[in-house]
Amino acid sequence: MIRCGIIGYGFLGTRLAQALTDYRPRGLLLTALANSKGYIFSRDGFDKQSLPRDLSTHRGFKQDTPLQLIEDGLLDLIVVLTPTNVYTGNPGLTYIREALRRGIDVVTADKGPLVVAYRELISTAKSAGASLLYEATVGGGIPVFSLARHSLRGDRIRSVRGILNGTTNYILTRMHFEGLPLDLALKEAQMMGLAERDPSLDLGGIDSACKVVILANALLSMDKRLDDVYVKGITQVTSDAVMAAKEMGMTIKLVGSIEGGHLYVAPRLVRLNHPLCVHGTLNAIQFRTEVMGELTLIGKGAGESTVSALLSDIEWIIDRRAVSRVGP
Amino acid sequence: MIRCGIIGYGFLGTRLAQALTDYRPRGLLLTALANSKGYIFSRDGFDKQSLPRDLSTHRGFKQDTPLQLIEDGLLDLIVVLTPTNVYTGNPGLTYIREALRRGIDVVTADKGPLVVAYRELISTAKSAGASLLYEATVGGGIPVFSLARHSLRGDRIRSVRGILNGTTNYILTRMHFEGLPLDLALKEAQMMGLAERDPSLDLGGIDSACKVVILANALLSMDKRLDDVYVKGITQVTSDAVMAAKEMGMTIKLVGSIEGGHLYVAPRLVRLNHPLCVHGTLNAIQFRTEVMGELTLIGKGAGESTVSALLSDIEWIIDRRAVSRVGP
Repeated sequence: MIRCGIIGYGFLGTRLAQALTDYRPRGLLLTALANSKGYIFSRDGFDKQSLPRDLSTHRGFKQDTPLQLIEDGLLDLIVVLTPTNVYTGNPGLTYIREALRRGIDVVTADKGPLVVAYRELISTAKSAGASLLYEATVGGGIPVFSLARHSLRGDRIRSVRGILNGTTNYILTRMHFEGLPLDLALKEAQMMGLAERDPSLDLGGIDSACKVVILANALLSMDKRLDDVYVKGITQVTSDAVMAAKEMGMTIKLVGSIEGGHLYVAPRLVRLNHPLCVHGTLNAIQFRTEVMGELTLIGKGAGESTVSALLSDIEWIIDRRAVSRVGP
Repeated sequence: MIRCGIIGYGFLGTRLAQALTDYRPRGLLLTALANSKGYIFSRDGFDKQSLPRDLSTHRGFKQDTPLQLIEDGLLDLIVVLTPTNVYTGNPGLTYIREALRRGIDVVTADKGPLVVAYRELISTAKSAGASLLYEATVGGGIPVFSLARHSLRGDRIRSVRGILNGTTNYILTRMHFEGLPLDLALKEAQMMGLAERDPSLDLGGIDSACKVVILANALLSMDKRLDDVYVKGITQVTSDAVMAAKEMGMTIKLVGSIEGGHLYVAPRLVRLNHPLCVHGTLNAIQFRTEVMGELTLIGKGAGESTVSALLSDIEWIIDRRAVSRVGP
C-alpha cells in the first residue's frame, strides 16, 4: 500500500484530498495532511468523513515541520502543493529534495523547486529510484508532460510555444474584445479573483517564464533557469496597440517560447484564427515535432482542473510501483 | 524480439517502414511487408537499404494472402494499413480478427474493422491477451486515445466534439475566407490532392461518422455502429449560409459529437473564437471531463503525421511485452 501525504492544504490540497477520498485509487492510502506549521497523520488513512476543513484547529494537529513525516519513513509518496517561491524554490524544494533522497516519490504543483533545481532533483530521483512528476505546474488542465511521455514516443519535440498564464490572457482578452485599457482590465480580473493583489509576477511575465523553463528542461532536455529567459511582460501593452492589431485580424498575446535553444516570454502579435489564439483564462501549448508536425493543446490553466493533473501523476506512480513489485 | 509485419504498403505503409528502419525501436524487427496480393518476408528483418519501393516487383515477393504470415506464426505484431471499407470492414477485419485470435498484437489505421466490429475485436483481444491499438484512425496527428489512456486516468469523459475530417474542413475554410461556392472549393481540394475523385464519404459526413463511432466505443465504452449516428454532410451548405454566419462572428463547420448517449455528425455554427474552430485541413477534438473540464486538441488529421500515431502505438506494445516478460 502506498502511503501518501499532502503538503500544503490550501485550495488545491483540499480539493485533492476530497478527490482522493472520493474515488479511492486502488493501492493508495491518504495518511498525512500537512502545512508549513504542522501536520495530522492517520495510519489507517483518512476517509471522506475524517477530512478536516482546517488543519491547525484539528485535535490531532502536531506542530512540527512536515520534514518529520519524511524523515520518520511514514510516507511513500508526497504531493507538494506549497506556495511558490520562484527565486529560492522553498519551502517546497527542501521537502522534495529530502523525499527524493530517501526514495520517496514526489508529485508537485509547485513551480519554484523545478525552476531553481530541475537537473539536481531529476538526478537525485534517478539515483534513489524515485519518481518526480509535475504535470500540474504548467497548464493545470492540459496534460502536457504526460502526453509527451506517452504519446510522442519515437518522435522528437523541436520547439514549443504557449499562452501559459491565465491572468494576463484574461486581461488581454478584455482589452481586445471590450477595448478596455490595461489598468481597468486588471482591476476587473482582481475583482473576479483571477489576479492577485500584487499581480507583478503575472503581468511581468515571470510566471510564464517559470513555465517556459520547466518545459525546456523537461521536454527538450535542456538545463535552463529563470535567468536564461528573455522576459518582457504586458505592462507596456496599450489599448491602442491591441486595437491596431485587431484591425489587421490579429491580437496581442503573452507568448512563451522555446526556439533554437533560446527561451522567450514577450507580447506577440497572433493571428485571430491561429490555433494558439485562445481567449479568457484559457491556456494553449503548441509543440512542433519531427514526425507529427504541429500539435496544439488548449485547456484551463489553473484551479479545479489542476486536480486532474495531480490525479493522473498519482495514478502513474501507483502503476509504476505495481510494475516494479512484480519485476525481477 | 517482436517480429512486426506491415499489411498495406501504400503511402502510409511505406512511410512507416522508413520510420521503423530509420530509428529502429529496441526490441522490434520489421520482418514482413504485405499487400492484398502477397508479401515479402525477411527472418532477420528489413533495414533501410533493403526496403523495396514496390512490393509486387520485388524478387522475394510471394503471391499469397497475408493471412498465411499470421497462420504460420511468423509475426508477433501486425500493423494493418489496408484501404478502408466502412460497411464490411474488409479486408482489414479478416486480418485483425485472425491475428488477435492467435494472440498477435495489432496496430491499425483502418477505420472499417473498428466501425463494424469494435466490441467483438476488443473482446477477442482480451481473451487472447493481445493488444489492439488504433491511434491513427481518428485525427492522425492528434494522440487522442493515448491521451485518454494515460492522462485522463482518475477522470471521466462526459462528452466529445470534434472537427474530424480534413477535406470538408478545407472546403468550408475556403468558403468562409474566400467566399467560394462549395463546388469550386471542392474542385480546388481535389486538385490539391486533399479530396478523392469520389468525395462522397467525406462530404456526406460518413468519414466523420466512422470516427465518432470509434470515439464513442473507445472513450465512452459504448457499443455503437455507423447506423447509430445521425449523419448530415456538407453538400447542402451554401456560400450564402457561410457568409451569413461570418457576419455574426461565426462560421459553419462539420462537427461530430457524442452527447448524452447520442452520436451526431452535422454542419454547425461555431463561433470564430471558439477553441474548436480550426481552419484548413486541421482537425480538432474537444473532451469535456468530470474533473479536468474542457480540453481541446488540435493537429493534422492525416498524412505524414499519422506515422507518429502508429509509432507511439508500436512503442506502447514494445513496453507492454517487456513488462509482461518480467512479470510473474
